[in-house]
Amino acid sequence: LTFASLRGNMQPELSKKLFKLIKTENHVIGAYENASRERLSVASQLSDWGEATADDAVSDLSDKLGVLLSEIGEQEDAFAQNLEDYRGILKQIRNTESSVQPSRDHKAKITDEIQKLKYKDPQSTKLVQLEQELVRAEAENLVAEAQLTNITRQKLKEAYDMHFAATIERAEKQIILSRHGRRLLNLLDDTPIVPGDARPAFEYERQARQILNDAEEELREWQPNLEPVESSAMM
Amino acid sequence: LTFASLRGNMQPELSKKLFKLIKTENHVIGAYENASRERLSVASQLSDWGEATADDAVSDLSDKLGVLLSEIGEQEDAFAQNLEDYRGILKQIRNTESSVQPSRDHKAKITDEIQKLKYKDPQSTKLVQLEQELVRAEAENLVAEAQLTNITRQKLKEAYDMHFAATIERAEKQIILSRHGRRLLNLLDDTPIVPGDARPAFEYERQARQILNDAEEELREWQPNLEPVESSAMM
Repeated sequence: LTFASLRGNMQPELSKKLFKLIKTENHVIGAYENASRERLSVASQLSDWGEATADDAVSDLSDKLGVLLSEIGEQEDAFAQNLEDYRGILKQIRNTESSVQPSRDHKAKITDEIQKLKYKDPQSTKLVQLEQELVRAEAENLVAEAQLTNITRQKLKEAYDMHFAATIERAEKQIILSRHGRRLLNLLDDTPIVPGDARPAFEYERQARQILNDAEEELREWQPNLEPVESSAMM
Repeated sequence: LTFASLRGNMQPELSKKLFKLIKTENHVIGAYENASRERLSVASQLSDWGEATADDAVSDLSDKLGVLLSEIGEQEDAFAQNLEDYRGILKQIRNTESSVQPSRDHKAKITDEIQKLKYKDPQSTKLVQLEQELVRAEAENLVAEAQLTNITRQKLKEAYDMHFAATIERAEKQIILSRHGRRLLNLLDDTPIVPGDARPAFEYERQARQILNDAEEELREWQPNLEPVESSAMM
């Protein structure tokens, strides 16, 4: 038993499942943060390696591939941050669940007391008082349960609206970067040379730079283009 | 110093940088494998949570959202496997680098010996023999260097062709899944209810099922649509 799992056990029954899901989602976010960090490292290592080959074409293009790969890595981190926001919305459902639990418990406790007293002492004057308490507890619980279904449905939509929008944003931006990356590759002449022949000088620095500029501009002009998730909640 | 870094230090100078890059890329792959595993776990936890809410709309839709989220998680794992293949291609460059190092060393060693002998004993008959050895070493090295540039350029294109194609495949498939996920969300009525009112019964099971079928079919019909990366290598 760890401290973390102990905390999980201390959650009210009603919010236990979502509590665990939110915890697992934290591991997902951590995995994307790692992926981002390691990809940034690979991108700069690729640039360094290319420089060390002393092949001017490989050196120039590996450096520019590194720039695009870095940006792809940054998108993983931006995605992780969006997942953090989505996770925050799930917490609002979980918190509402936690707050509804005492209301359910209170109602159940009074109902139980009434049952016991009816069996042990059916003439007890305390019964009238308990019946009144139950009416109040039921009214309070009706409000709590309405709040729970309202928050659950509204925030579930909001959370996964954000989740899917973030997935689409990462995907569309990485497609832009990858397509320009493929253009860069086409600037590398891989015609085999015979021993003793030298490679012709690399003549596409300007085109390669233009590809990076195109990628940058297309990324800057990117706009979300989504079918809206409609909400009827007004809160 | 760990065993792993010791192995890195034992690499020939020429292949050290790529050796490290390939190692870092292994961490990237591990991160995506983790992301995949944790996302599959979140998807099934979402379905379980929805069932426990005892709200038939939330139960049905969270189960189907879970199906789409699982498939998004599977795409992370497929992406990791594609990165493994790309990594295998980088290893071919690294192995060629490793095999070229002795040829460079051999040439440098003979050149060095000739310099020393010319200084110490310019009349030595061994000089003629060393000069002949140098001619052979230079010829052997010319072949090795040609192989190195040929493999480097060809495999660099091939590796990043695969890398970018894999990025685009994951992106396009996750976009398909996310867009259908947003359609599912629109089946959830989040109009607030007042305390005491019941939710109307959920009437969209059939539409929700159809959305999953649509997603499945669109995924099955997905085809790569890429500008080709051209190669002039014939090996």
